[in-house]
Amino acid sequence: MAIMISVFEASPDRGRGLARDMGVRWALEEVGQPYDVRLLSFEAMKQPAHRARHPFGQIPTYEDEDVVLFESGAIILHIAQRHAGLLPVDPQERARAIAWMFAALSTVEPPVLDRETATFLIRDKPWYHEHLAILEARVRVRLDELAERLGDADWLDGAFSAGDLLMVMVLRRLSSTGLLDACPNLSAYVARGEARPAFQRAFAAQRALFIASQAKG
Amino acid sequence: MAIMISVFEASPDRGRGLARDMGVRWALEEVGQPYDVRLLSFEAMKQPAHRARHPFGQIPTYEDEDVVLFESGAIILHIAQRHAGLLPVDPQERARAIAWMFAALSTVEPPVLDRETATFLIRDKPWYHEHLAILEARVRVRLDELAERLGDADWLDGAFSAGDLLMVMVLRRLSSTGLLDACPNLSAYVARGEARPAFQRAFAAQRALFIASQAKG
Repeated sequence: MAIMISVFEASPDRGRGLARDMGVRWALEEVGQPYDVRLLSFEAMKQPAHRARHPFGQIPTYEDEDVVLFESGAIILHIAQRHAGLLPVDPQERARAIAWMFAALSTVEPPVLDRETATFLIRDKPWYHEHLAILEARVRVRLDELAERLGDADWLDGAFSAGDLLMVMVLRRLSSTGLLDACPNLSAYVARGEARPAFQRAFAAQRALFIASQAKG
Repeated sequence: MAIMISVFEASPDRGRGLARDMGVRWALEEVGQPYDVRLLSFEAMKQPAHRARHPFGQIPTYEDEDVVLFESGAIILHIAQRHAGLLPVDPQERARAIAWMFAALSTVEPPVLDRETATFLIRDKPWYHEHLAILEARVRVRLDELAERLGDADWLDGAFSAGDLLMVMVLRRLSSTGLLDACPNLSAYVARGEARPAFQRAFAAQRALFIASQAKG
């Protein structure tokens, strides 16, 4: 059985590669593993068949001959542990790369997502802009700390790892906000991630799917 | 060298065991590993000496004879991979337990923390209660989904694992909010976690430290 991942039938980001299947696709491309996709509508994601795979009714899920998994961070870690290319071999370096995976999802992403959620959840409130300023200040604290740590290195801790993959995925969510402009080394870091051939292949695959969904209807 | 973790000198939660060292202490107690603590003031956490261990100037950090780590999720995974007691031996079951670790931190915790952050960040705004209602509705969606999956099982996927440890830690943040009342099986799940002897030992250790800090200061 080939690897199968579930993805949006028509991604709400209109093919910009911000949906969470993008990181899983990128990881599979980095390690050279082919995969199939199961296309899901928003309605199908909430049905029992998919809830059995994903308790929170989201994408992506991952299936191989042995296991069914949900949570993009867990899926990427599983891929990285099974195939060479996304984690250092040395156990200490490996533990540190995994720490960056958790840092991306647990420390940097929450304020980024908080800000993003506000842009659709409370956009019509009279206090929207006042609250957005508060949320953006919190994002800036994390960006400054991350920029300080990255310095002029190419990647967060030695060679490119699954930690960088997830961190670039998180920072890409800010691309259209201008918030990265204050940290040129983080903008360059994101560009470096996006320039990787594996990223390009993953991006093209999810984008082709969105374009096909629009052509259909 | 014994395991060393860094913790708050005086925890802002006043010894309720909500700070992120609590999960690491709990994990170390579950696997029977002794540890020392390095006490940090809020000021010391932001200094270069600690930033070298933790780029975001937070607690906890973890040190053993081989590695220095940050991010409580990564630290707990590291402990669980080195010592028996927190992850199944079977590789597929292990991957699923790790998926629950990511689910706790990446899917359930963000809306919980969002709500909690609002209670101190925007408490004085005239629109505070209107926004709190929106944030609590998002928490309730996740709780309902989690309650549905847990059903009448004791733990999320077979035996108690690091995934349950992190999920209980996240849900404990809601203890004083009443939001768990609508899901009696989740309240019972949290109580089951808190009743574990390892939890009790970890809780007592962090609480004793808070009480000592009050006596001093």
